[in-house]
Amino acid sequence: MSLEVFVLGTSGMQPLPNRFLTSAAVRREGEIFLFDCGEGTQVSLKMLNLHWKRISRIFISHMHADHVTGLPGLLMLSSQVDRTEPLYIYGPAKLKEYIDANRKLLDMYINYEIRFVQTEPGVVYENKDLTVEAVPLLHTKPCFGYVLTEKDRPGEFSVENAKALNIPMGPMWGRLQKGETVTLENGTSITPNQVLGNPRRGVRFSFITDTMYLSSIANHVKNSDLLVCEGMFDNSLTQDAFEKKHMTSSQAAMIARDAGVKKLALIHYSPRYADKELKVLKEEASEIFENTILTKDRMVFEINNSD
Amino acid sequence: MSLEVFVLGTSGMQPLPNRFLTSAAVRREGEIFLFDCGEGTQVSLKMLNLHWKRISRIFISHMHADHVTGLPGLLMLSSQVDRTEPLYIYGPAKLKEYIDANRKLLDMYINYEIRFVQTEPGVVYENKDLTVEAVPLLHTKPCFGYVLTEKDRPGEFSVENAKALNIPMGPMWGRLQKGETVTLENGTSITPNQVLGNPRRGVRFSFITDTMYLSSIANHVKNSDLLVCEGMFDNSLTQDAFEKKHMTSSQAAMIARDAGVKKLALIHYSPRYADKELKVLKEEASEIFENTILTKDRMVFEINNSD
Repeated sequence: MSLEVFVLGTSGMQPLPNRFLTSAAVRREGEIFLFDCGEGTQVSLKMLNLHWKRISRIFISHMHADHVTGLPGLLMLSSQVDRTEPLYIYGPAKLKEYIDANRKLLDMYINYEIRFVQTEPGVVYENKDLTVEAVPLLHTKPCFGYVLTEKDRPGEFSVENAKALNIPMGPMWGRLQKGETVTLENGTSITPNQVLGNPRRGVRFSFITDTMYLSSIANHVKNSDLLVCEGMFDNSLTQDAFEKKHMTSSQAAMIARDAGVKKLALIHYSPRYADKELKVLKEEASEIFENTILTKDRMVFEINNSD
Repeated sequence: MSLEVFVLGTSGMQPLPNRFLTSAAVRREGEIFLFDCGEGTQVSLKMLNLHWKRISRIFISHMHADHVTGLPGLLMLSSQVDRTEPLYIYGPAKLKEYIDANRKLLDMYINYEIRFVQTEPGVVYENKDLTVEAVPLLHTKPCFGYVLTEKDRPGEFSVENAKALNIPMGPMWGRLQKGETVTLENGTSITPNQVLGNPRRGVRFSFITDTMYLSSIANHVKNSDLLVCEGMFDNSLTQDAFEKKHMTSSQAAMIARDAGVKKLALIHYSPRYADKELKVLKEEASEIFENTILTKDRMVFEINNSD
């Protein structure tokens, strides 16, 4: 199983020429989930040719301008496409008020249904293939990270093997797929591993911003294939980060290390760093967690279970 | 006297990779006036090195998302600079509600005073050097264009000429500057034109968007040195423009021609046109008004009275 993750904006606080405000998208089997929606998100979606119509669910971390001001414009795009499915939006309670106020004050023409779901810690969305869990963070206002976890699935059934073993097509195939051992008419026992490939591990994507460092975060994002995490400041500003309830890149790396993630992708950089100065964030994080990536706007990650 | 005009965003409806949403700035003697504030305005300001702190007044045309969604983020920048002067914001009544709702819902920290002025047709701002007049437009909701007019001033006093003519420094200089003829002790009459340069004509900048074509607009923007005006559609979409209460570029050109402006700068393009397709808008407008410019984001115009 696999996901594509698109970084739509990497800046915190303020959009910059090469760094739109914080947002990321996950595409899975053609469906797009959006995480946060700062100013510029629409532009990155367009540049990546990600179709607005495919966005089924939007997950918002918290109600600060740099995470939501791209949302009204994005909702407006609706009038441009033929959309019949509702759009689900998850976030803190005030998000509904924000959307309602914008709709009213800007006479926003929205020709589809918006279903608002107030985020509470725990699983906020589940379908047969995946769950999205909200992680309580600690910022200057209520804030949640999100962890998307695909469910594990049994290995792929090999029709070729089944035929070679003379297993008759029918109920036995189904039982083998469910992990049961079956006995053929001639008395031969067939175990599932004779016809199934390796179990397909679901992949995990975590999106953590904005927050001060909490050791509890590592438990929530455990074994993520990709952890997109704020690393706003360098070590010289650890005290500032603490006071502003943000993290240094080293703190993001501690979480990545403790959670045993595969890859850490830093995001939500302070505008104090020019593009070329960001490397300090990566250097400091890499000392603690080696596989650290300094994201750029429109960077794309492919995650699959063979990684 | 002179102004610089900066086009910050040229797109209507939807921000695009090379076209942020509609906004323009005027800088005059270090002070910046902002006209509309769509998504991306902050980024263009940054790219042009225009300091947020220098923005003293913001004039908003109307309450549609593509003209105001950049505003909350821009107001937030305040917390980054040491600003003591109030910020004046002019616009339709709902603009105040919009700002208040955003401040409340996004916990916006704003450490200076915002003074809201509800726009009504006529002069909305005047100081010793200039006026800003609101022009009633006709769109799907209340909408105003704005015309900034510098006041004319007498020509520059030439100290060199005055000395050459043996006019004693003192009250006579002042009287000549006021346009009076003076008589020297030796009986010689000196007329103002002997010591004053040509009268300094104030320049005029007009910002017209969004509106259907109204012949009355030409009266308001008469003799503008620069008319920044929506020209959203080509002639094949004249009926669409009418129904959506927008203008074709040809209609913008009719206004420019009838108003006798010096230069027409088209803005607020429909996202239906890719960048390279925009030239049709210029071609059609140029047939009616030759000095038509197809603006691009971050285009700069210098207007001075010797043009």
